[in-house]
Amino acid sequence: MKLGTVRVDGSQRVVVAVPGDDRRAVLLEPGQTVLGLISHWGTSVMALELDLSGAVAVAGLDWLPPVPRPGKIICVALNNSANVDRIMSGPDKPATFNKPSTSLLGHGQPIRLKKEYGRVHPEPELAVVIGKGGADIGRDEAMGHVFGYTIINDLTSPTMRAQDTFHYRAIHPKKDGTEGIEYVDTWTTYSGRYKGSDGFGPIGPWIVTADAIDDPHALTVSCVHQGRLVTEDSTANLMHKVADVVSYMSNYQTLEAGDIIAMGTALKPSTSGGTAGGPTGGTAVQNVNLTELGGPIEVTISGIGTLSNPVEVR
Amino acid sequence: MKLGTVRVDGSQRVVVAVPGDDRRAVLLEPGQTVLGLISHWGTSVMALELDLSGAVAVAGLDWLPPVPRPGKIICVALNNSANVDRIMSGPDKPATFNKPSTSLLGHGQPIRLKKEYGRVHPEPELAVVIGKGGADIGRDEAMGHVFGYTIINDLTSPTMRAQDTFHYRAIHPKKDGTEGIEYVDTWTTYSGRYKGSDGFGPIGPWIVTADAIDDPHALTVSCVHQGRLVTEDSTANLMHKVADVVSYMSNYQTLEAGDIIAMGTALKPSTSGGTAGGPTGGTAVQNVNLTELGGPIEVTISGIGTLSNPVEVR
Repeated sequence: MKLGTVRVDGSQRVVVAVPGDDRRAVLLEPGQTVLGLISHWGTSVMALELDLSGAVAVAGLDWLPPVPRPGKIICVALNNSANVDRIMSGPDKPATFNKPSTSLLGHGQPIRLKKEYGRVHPEPELAVVIGKGGADIGRDEAMGHVFGYTIINDLTSPTMRAQDTFHYRAIHPKKDGTEGIEYVDTWTTYSGRYKGSDGFGPIGPWIVTADAIDDPHALTVSCVHQGRLVTEDSTANLMHKVADVVSYMSNYQTLEAGDIIAMGTALKPSTSGGTAGGPTGGTAVQNVNLTELGGPIEVTISGIGTLSNPVEVR
Repeated sequence: MKLGTVRVDGSQRVVVAVPGDDRRAVLLEPGQTVLGLISHWGTSVMALELDLSGAVAVAGLDWLPPVPRPGKIICVALNNSANVDRIMSGPDKPATFNKPSTSLLGHGQPIRLKKEYGRVHPEPELAVVIGKGGADIGRDEAMGHVFGYTIINDLTSPTMRAQDTFHYRAIHPKKDGTEGIEYVDTWTTYSGRYKGSDGFGPIGPWIVTADAIDDPHALTVSCVHQGRLVTEDSTANLMHKVADVVSYMSNYQTLEAGDIIAMGTALKPSTSGGTAGGPTGGTAVQNVNLTELGGPIEVTISGIGTLSNPVEVR
């Protein structure tokens, strides 16, 4: 089943794709929400009876994020086997940051960038939608907490990342265990702006329920900019798998129904021409500076759909 | 006016301090929420008529975060004039990260730490509660968007910070402007665990409305661990002021009613004994490893109140 959230006459409505025909969809009654359906997952979602006689054209829908206001958005960093030889040191467990819900944007809605953002590039990612919350979830139980999957474009500004990096002498306790402190040379970067600015999280249009995805690590993820294929990769290359991330992060951040986990850029660069470009030869998502080039920018994941957004620069 | 959120018989209730007597408070009718009051700020909050005959003792209340589930929590990093000589390079504007709402904890509730978190220390901070949302808010208008102030203890694990730091070769576009990429030696740290774990955001108990705080940059912030004063500082030492941060961040993350902005640790260390310890001589918040030492840990801000939490380690 595919479901999403759209705006009709200023109100939010749940939309469900007609089985076998992604171009037509049924609007549920006002008052229903995707989060509400997820919270009663099992009883409500699977028992939905769709009145196909009232189906509308998907093409004309005004999309919101499928969960318009998730409790939290967890994003996994540097989670691709292609990164391994670029990492001099780092954790062997998922490292994450949180994007605010105000950064999310529906399918088809314009990404509004300001020139002062500097470079902004796309990062095409599989996103997990949590169905059943919990803490300290075992790896074997983790997949039972997944409601479904959607697509997120984890927009990133390397300009703001560089600006918001501190090189400083961090205060640490004395190593000898006595009171008092000593300084340790430290680099720390803060992600508020470079990952969390308005519109930096296009997401959707559809959530595909977990029962419809045989293996979340056998999906093709592609990114197309202005009609040109920038990259194409498989979720097989994600180092930390969905079950690993759900289980591990639930040890730290209690998961709630509707939470989103962005799994990290599925982006294995080719080595053509001596550069690490995409499969079209020599380009990478980092080359696609949306602030300069504009849109549209499109992410497709097999079995889930296509997320496309225009870009406005001001 | 001081208001907060408590739990009574399993339900959330808004509590308002009896004017002039912080030890007694009035519970509002079920169904009212602090976020609801903030959203209708001006009409609802200031027009509240309290039935003092039903006042209850504050001491027996079971506190939740004053806004139990804010849309977002923005935290300003390294925002103290005492940091200046420790920063070799960094931005001259506020750098921020986002904590998830699941990290928040009410006054008096136990901070539950796991040994695997490693070191966890307190960071006493003034927190701003946004009353009126907006984007691109001018500095002159910024204070008009502030509903009030509360206290946050921005718990931090330097152990997890070190673990979740990558030293890697980041992919950048070629400097000569041609397609293709080059590698740039980069350090990046991700705050998901070290700032966003469950219980890493004790907050409250009270929100004091902005009309009751003459100058948010003339407040004394102190931190007491197991009855011992660890540090005492003034919000005068915050480099980026409330108006600066509200205005600046609204250019990037649209602010919404109920959003929380943690202003950064107000913590000017003394230089006694050649170390940068607190005013009691030689200790600093970084010395207070809650995972090893336990609680209670207490933050007091003049005119706002005292936030105190026990610690449980498992």
